[in-house]
Amino acid sequence: MLEKTNRVNILFDFYGQLLKDRQKQFLEMYYRDDLTLSEIAELMDVSRQAVFDQLKRTENVLENYEEKLQLLAKHQEREERLSHLLQIVESDQWDQDQIRSEIKELVQFELEQSEEA
Amino acid sequence: MLEKTNRVNILFDFYGQLLKDRQKQFLEMYYRDDLTLSEIAELMDVSRQAVFDQLKRTENVLENYEEKLQLLAKHQEREERLSHLLQIVESDQWDQDQIRSEIKELVQFELEQSEEA
Repeated sequence: MLEKTNRVNILFDFYGQLLKDRQKQFLEMYYRDDLTLSEIAELMDVSRQAVFDQLKRTENVLENYEEKLQLLAKHQEREERLSHLLQIVESDQWDQDQIRSEIKELVQFELEQSEEA
Repeated sequence: MLEKTNRVNILFDFYGQLLKDRQKQFLEMYYRDDLTLSEIAELMDVSRQAVFDQLKRTENVLENYEEKLQLLAKHQEREERLSHLLQIVESDQWDQDQIRSEIKELVQFELEQSEEA
């Protein structure tokens, strides 16, 4: 459940701008403000089932954006590559060739983003 | 005009997945295959004005996505940062502190992407 919450929150960070106001509102109340379905239902004057359906639909919208744009997946790949690079340059074993080639790979990775997307 | 074509093509690379089939089709014929409005009109059996309107609308859809997600702008910033870093590591003036701090900035930049988005 925590993992699910995390994933929705992160997808919301990436794609929240594309959601409608009402979709945002429900998602924020449930995932960010940690309200229960019943509390949201009362606040929004709809049934508990309607809140549940709205949340499900919006989660699907977010997953659908991720399937198409892969922003979260690419973000994670960048972070891994960068943290690996950082590890190398922060250790005392500087290997210039290795650093150079890792940075070149990163450049290549970025160039591919605008083409394959 | 070339600049406009380039921009639409790049935005299409980033957001094409989010377009409807018909929007993609018109955009590809005009911007990628370089057909004229009249040629597209004949092929699709619609008026020249309808082609023009469809293209305008789709360009606006793409610009609207860019306004919200800023994928092109962020991509350009990454490329600049990486090519700068590459320049440093490919020159013979290795400055370890400088390289380290540039990489840290890159990591910071990536971390901000998932938060501010």
